[in-house]
Amino acid sequence: MGSKYPFFRNYKKVSILIAFVIAGVIMFVHCTEQPPGTVALTELQERALKFTSPMPEHAFEEGMNQSPEIIELGKMLFHEPRISKSGIISCSSCHSLTTFGVDQTPVSIGHGWRKGPLNAPTVLNAAFHKTQFWNGRAKDVEEQAGMPILDQLEMAATEEHVLAVLSSIPEYVERFHAAFPDQENPLVYENVGNAIGAFERILLTYSPFDDFIRGDAGALTDEQKKGLEAFIEVGCQTCHRGQVLGGELFTFFQTPKERETGIFNFGRYEFTQREADKHFFKVPSLLNIAKTYPYLHDGSVWSLSETVDIVAKDMLSRDLTPEQNRLIVEFLKSLTGEIPAYALELPVLPPSTAETPRPRFDI
Amino acid sequence: MGSKYPFFRNYKKVSILIAFVIAGVIMFVHCTEQPPGTVALTELQERALKFTSPMPEHAFEEGMNQSPEIIELGKMLFHEPRISKSGIISCSSCHSLTTFGVDQTPVSIGHGWRKGPLNAPTVLNAAFHKTQFWNGRAKDVEEQAGMPILDQLEMAATEEHVLAVLSSIPEYVERFHAAFPDQENPLVYENVGNAIGAFERILLTYSPFDDFIRGDAGALTDEQKKGLEAFIEVGCQTCHRGQVLGGELFTFFQTPKERETGIFNFGRYEFTQREADKHFFKVPSLLNIAKTYPYLHDGSVWSLSETVDIVAKDMLSRDLTPEQNRLIVEFLKSLTGEIPAYALELPVLPPSTAETPRPRFDI
Repeated sequence: MGSKYPFFRNYKKVSILIAFVIAGVIMFVHCTEQPPGTVALTELQERALKFTSPMPEHAFEEGMNQSPEIIELGKMLFHEPRISKSGIISCSSCHSLTTFGVDQTPVSIGHGWRKGPLNAPTVLNAAFHKTQFWNGRAKDVEEQAGMPILDQLEMAATEEHVLAVLSSIPEYVERFHAAFPDQENPLVYENVGNAIGAFERILLTYSPFDDFIRGDAGALTDEQKKGLEAFIEVGCQTCHRGQVLGGELFTFFQTPKERETGIFNFGRYEFTQREADKHFFKVPSLLNIAKTYPYLHDGSVWSLSETVDIVAKDMLSRDLTPEQNRLIVEFLKSLTGEIPAYALELPVLPPSTAETPRPRFDI
Repeated sequence: MGSKYPFFRNYKKVSILIAFVIAGVIMFVHCTEQPPGTVALTELQERALKFTSPMPEHAFEEGMNQSPEIIELGKMLFHEPRISKSGIISCSSCHSLTTFGVDQTPVSIGHGWRKGPLNAPTVLNAAFHKTQFWNGRAKDVEEQAGMPILDQLEMAATEEHVLAVLSSIPEYVERFHAAFPDQENPLVYENVGNAIGAFERILLTYSPFDDFIRGDAGALTDEQKKGLEAFIEVGCQTCHRGQVLGGELFTFFQTPKERETGIFNFGRYEFTQREADKHFFKVPSLLNIAKTYPYLHDGSVWSLSETVDIVAKDMLSRDLTPEQNRLIVEFLKSLTGEIPAYALELPVLPPSTAETPRPRFDI
């Protein structure tokens, strides 16, 4: 730009220099790379690998549509408020990625400022739960994603409303065709859940604990390692096991608040209507647990330390020492992971048209 | 990794090759760069430059704190729901960047599902408005940002609540010190607005029209150029002038719905209490107007074309021909810009502590 500074006058030479520096760095990084080999695991790593495993790259099962088109469409729908009756509530309203996929409130607020009955679980790593919701009423994230949209306490829409909104917006029509290329009419309600589910299948978080069981024995602090030992010794992994340390079993659980007030949610019973399922709830995942307060199915306890004591006592009949409690909490902090950068990039949504149904605030 | 493929066996050689290719590309890009020079503007470009100017890089005024620290803090606070009474409403609830900084509803819904009185203006390019809000009651984005947080129809918080939340979270305390390094106690309510305002000062959008007045005569389609001519001939730029094509003057305006129902918002009068200000509203910016429906201060009109007719008739006593209307709408579409990628990257918010005030849903 005709600058008076010699640096800018010589920018061609400088570029060449920069290019060679980049070349040098790339060569250096590759040439100093460690030769491949196997790392011996410590005994504690081996013990952890008995009840969990390293986080894979994504949660798609074989044969599932995992194209960039379906994932991007799912991300857009996850942030799309127009599929709610009011036009202002989206999945991300209660599962914001700014707050680790939850709303950090005891129960969620939906259409008309109505309160939901249970604490909203995080969408992060949810795809690895064996069933969805506290009561397991959906079999996977695809089925789950379609339900809150229609729930009168949440987004309060109808299938017709959702499809009317999406069909009225040409960019969505195109994107559904690109995401479901084999379907003649991909704009069906089921595919809304399929797309959102595909997005959720990449919402995985990679934590220090994940590095630890992958082979990096230094990824946990000494306190966290002691905490992991205490966790195992106390028996937490009896229920908090599997890919996401939870999300598999259903157990009988009543929260202290439920017992105190005598007002219970019946958990799995509300879905199955089987007497034996009364008070049974899905064991929650422990990944990112330090960030997904408040705790328990009614969100009635805000302190992680208190929650650890309550659950140890209630489920394992163990009275933890303050030191055990402290160490277990330290270990649980090592389960906080990084949200993939792609997931944190907000999509810009395509505009409505004259045919798009208008927001309705009535209750 | 001991791969059977020769490509991976030879990865050192391949890296060197890649490095040289990168070097080559960088050199090529620099060496083929056009020498600086002046481009002759067309008459239409010159006419446009009489009432507006190209979008600058940011909206900071001289001497303003524009550090990355204050901008990032502002972005976090913009997305921070805990500074609302309920813990679930943030600036981005009504000014989502997924929908061009508005909520695309006639009026906004706040705490307790209460309705606001006026249509939420976009935060994009808002820093260039001479005053803020439809009635101009805040002098700049810094002053504006602090107000909806305390409004009982919106986030329903108190200054004490906001400061209690932020002081209870060590990462925020650190970030306030980093953002306001000269202040001994930067955790004051005014700085919440100062930080959010700093973030808003980079929320600028760069449109085809911006390219056009910057010298690229081909940035507008022929229809859009005809639309710009019609826009000028009809006289829209009388009020829609300046950096953001609006945001400067206050004009008398009653919407068709207000006249029909007899229920008026008094605009600037509600702030100044001066009789002469009754029904006076700030002329809105036209940037991104195709995306920030519905229109007029009560959000009562959804069609941009209809809005153009209403405003031309009401403000300029002009009955547009359908062709004039169509061309002006085409021109207005050229004002849709790109939101900076940095602004679209969601921040991950720091966790609450035992001292953080809890969400309150009561009204």
